[in-house]
Amino acid sequence: MTATYTLRRRVQFYETDVAGIVHFSWFFRYMEEAEHAMWRAAGVSIHPPSSDIGWPRIASTFEFQRPLRFEDEFDVHIWIDDMTKRTIRYACELKKDGEQVASGTMTIACVQKSPSGMRSIEIPSAVAQAFGPAETA
Amino acid sequence: MTATYTLRRRVQFYETDVAGIVHFSWFFRYMEEAEHAMWRAAGVSIHPPSSDIGWPRIASTFEFQRPLRFEDEFDVHIWIDDMTKRTIRYACELKKDGEQVASGTMTIACVQKSPSGMRSIEIPSAVAQAFGPAETA
Amino acid sequence: MTATYTLRRRVQFYETDVAGIVHFSWFFRYMEEAEHAMWRAAGVSIHPPSSDIGWPRIASTFEFQRPLRFEDEFDVHIWIDDMTKRTIRYACELKKDGEQVASGTMTIACVQKSPSGMRSIEIPSAVAQAFGPAETA
Amino acid sequence: MTATYTLRRRVQFYETDVAGIVHFSWFFRYMEEAEHAMWRAAGVSIHPPSSDIGWPRIASTFEFQRPLRFEDEFDVHIWIDDMTKRTIRYACELKKDGEQVASGTMTIACVQKSPSGMRSIEIPSAVAQAFGPAETA
Repeated sequence: MTATYTLRRRVQFYETDVAGIVHFSWFFRYMEEAEHAMWRAAGVSIHPPSSDIGWPRIASTFEFQRPLRFEDEFDVHIWIDDMTKRTIRYACELKKDGEQVASGTMTIACVQKSPSGMRSIEIPSAVAQAFGPAETA
Repeated sequence: MTATYTLRRRVQFYETDVAGIVHFSWFFRYMEEAEHAMWRAAGVSIHPPSSDIGWPRIASTFEFQRPLRFEDEFDVHIWIDDMTKRTIRYACELKKDGEQVASGTMTIACVQKSPSGMRSIEIPSAVAQAFGPAETA
Repeated sequence: MTATYTLRRRVQFYETDVAGIVHFSWFFRYMEEAEHAMWRAAGVSIHPPSSDIGWPRIASTFEFQRPLRFEDEFDVHIWIDDMTKRTIRYACELKKDGEQVASGTMTIACVQKSPSGMRSIEIPSAVAQAFGPAETA
Repeated sequence: MTATYTLRRRVQFYETDVAGIVHFSWFFRYMEEAEHAMWRAAGVSIHPPSSDIGWPRIASTFEFQRPLRFEDEFDVHIWIDDMTKRTIRYACELKKDGEQVASGTMTIACVQKSPSGMRSIEIPSAVAQAFGPAETA
């Protein structure tokens, strides 16, 4: 649906654990970092300062093939796998030196926030257009 | 396969994000916290001080139904969903005030660590027995 | 000024790093966890759901004497070291098996939040009284 | 003693908290990130894969002047404030758009690790020389 966005990243010390590798919870943060960088590259922010619109995550998965270690450099390749009127589903792959490290998915929903909570709304057209430019003439 | 283990937990301030709710990456840590508490309750540690055996995560998923907020108290119910010779698969449910908050899965593999890396090994019998007592005569 | 509050805590796996010990950034979180538990024990919350009052940290220090490791149990002893009209200064000590692990301080300021930012205000009397009961007759 | 090293950084979503600003514990991680980048720039790693030498933190402080928010870009300026035979003390300043955000210090000790624990040792000459080139003739 969209081009793949690639984030180059280096493992930080505080991301490792006593097993000597990156703690698995960090891969979900790496995927989200890449998502937000992809949004910025598309000219939009997922959390503008005064917005009442939010994007909670409704599902996420990861499969891990290889560990990452302190100071490793790796790439997060992320793309939009599916977009409905109210949700966006990403897929991503992490690679180090060309080898697959892990692969993940993440589905987010668009909501309007109010003092009483959140309710699902349609994705604003500015966002939909940033990622899915009209292809027809 | 095993009884369900329940961890009572309270949301900490540093687990929340600017959207006002617990960041989704924390649910994977909650699940792991419950896993390790379940191991301790079964009389074993997932990371004894001088062991060369490790338990890297090879897959994990979460689906989120409701947000958690600062100081919320919730329960993590975790159980072993499947155990093979070399892997353990957990399932868990998070509930707050009886309502479903999220549900997750996590699969771990048993490995032997050496300076050159890790290799898959069979789950030690002490661990297998801690969670799956012989039921046959 | 106030009695010491003690939080019993266990080291979680994701709090360790590749050096095999708890990453130093976690001690600041342990101190804050103990602070918030002390507030709850005093009948107040540091972040009630609909409040426009906040408590940003304006300074913090830690000295580390001994490392903490996975599954270690330890105590965080925290007390209010000084309270002015607009700030609270805590001191804390972490101990494991009676031995000093680390000691820290943290100063927080009371602010009122608005769309344009935060401004320093006096500590609400309900909070001041929760921690500093009138001792005079 | 050494030149100042500057790390350009952007605030990530998971570094914010429900107060809408970066959680104070992250500033200590920012300082450490800058430290490790400074080591790499000097041609050394603070944690080479097979080393038995470690650099635990023995003290750290921060003073906070301004908050950081999601997607803010800022600079961490770090330099070695003092180096003894067995310790290194850093000072750092965080700035955003030229304005001071926070300032911190961190003291680390050189240790040799063994199965029984850690013991203080002298800083290896390769490290001392990387940061403190001989100035005398």
